[in-house]
Amino acid sequence: MKTSARNQFFGKITAVNVGAVNAEVAVGLKGGQSIVAAITKESVEKLGVKVGGDAVALVKAPQVIVVMDDAGYRLSARNQLSGTVSRIHKGAVNSDVIIDLGGGETVAATITNDSLEALGLAEGQTAMAVFKAGSVILGVAA
Amino acid sequence: MKTSARNQFFGKITAVNVGAVNAEVAVGLKGGQSIVAAITKESVEKLGVKVGGDAVALVKAPQVIVVMDDAGYRLSARNQLSGTVSRIHKGAVNSDVIIDLGGGETVAATITNDSLEALGLAEGQTAMAVFKAGSVILGVAA
Amino acid sequence: MKTSARNQFFGKITAVNVGAVNAEVAVGLKGGQSIVAAITKESVEKLGVKVGGDAVALVKAPQVIVVMDDAGYRLSARNQLSGTVSRIHKGAVNSDVIIDLGGGETVAATITNDSLEALGLAEGQTAMAVFKAGSVILGVAA
Repeated sequence: MKTSARNQFFGKITAVNVGAVNAEVAVGLKGGQSIVAAITKESVEKLGVKVGGDAVALVKAPQVIVVMDDAGYRLSARNQLSGTVSRIHKGAVNSDVIIDLGGGETVAATITNDSLEALGLAEGQTAMAVFKAGSVILGVAA
Repeated sequence: MKTSARNQFFGKITAVNVGAVNAEVAVGLKGGQSIVAAITKESVEKLGVKVGGDAVALVKAPQVIVVMDDAGYRLSARNQLSGTVSRIHKGAVNSDVIIDLGGGETVAATITNDSLEALGLAEGQTAMAVFKAGSVILGVAA
Repeated sequence: MKTSARNQFFGKITAVNVGAVNAEVAVGLKGGQSIVAAITKESVEKLGVKVGGDAVALVKAPQVIVVMDDAGYRLSARNQLSGTVSRIHKGAVNSDVIIDLGGGETVAATITNDSLEALGLAEGQTAMAVFKAGSVILGVAA
């Protein structure tokens, strides 16, 4: 699969919760974490989404927030993945931050340099990659 | 209309499917393609969305994924527009990729240089611009 | 709270409208404006969202559109905040635009340099920051 989405999580579908209009689909990764995608009920049927099937969860790096300290706030985002900052690539305005989730999985987040400095983000630190289920595009193997 | 959204697709509303909570609105472009926007049922009423009306679909470039090869995966995203890469503008961390859809329409996608290199993306290649209906803001002429 | 989200709006929850599947939560800012977040009904219950509670609305800068002139189009986006452009930081491909909303609140938008030039955006101009309720992550104080 060749896409520009920096985050392409391949795994097996572990849960499909179909509501009145939308559905939440969980894709289990090798490292034990899961990615939750919100898609329409119609897409569940059209794509033939079912537990055990091979899938890929696509998430663009600009849609991922890096959280260092939640200060006791609980976040509404369905995807909150903990890991270690393994690489920071700094540009003129934005930086690319890679968080290692373990199990060979990484998450890329594009953040502004202002945020990078405000957070005092450095390689080796613990951080959380946060994104909404609605930011995830699901791909299902034919 | 002056907005920073790189993608401003003007057209006529060709379909409005209202569900229990949300609605999908299709905007037909001159080249024959359509853009689907997911908006709330409340917005449909408030904006006076109706088939045949003039509309604009706004999509930010960082929300567009470039797909070169789907490797047999079917994607959940409602918008999957095929075209030809007509321009690549490379920055320090990110690049701006323009895909020509024909009929005078183009789509801009902001992707990281890492992705650009991983894809081996070059002008003249066939590519697909993929984005979710939820990424689209709909504007309706008053 | 330490997150990379450029936009972190702290305030009190002023309204919670729970629908069949999703809910809209309004966070009132000091300047009198409100941010609306769309979250699932399940999150409302799990987070204990209630009117009067302390909350933070997180929005990434790449998800914010800058609108200078709507040319009579009404937009579907729930968040349309008016202000004054107070700072522009230009990079190689993208720029960071700060809009002052008054009351000490600002909104950051990441836009491409192409858009910056097309808009003729300059400090001191009136502009609107537009983003969907679905782009907002809600944080609730424990």
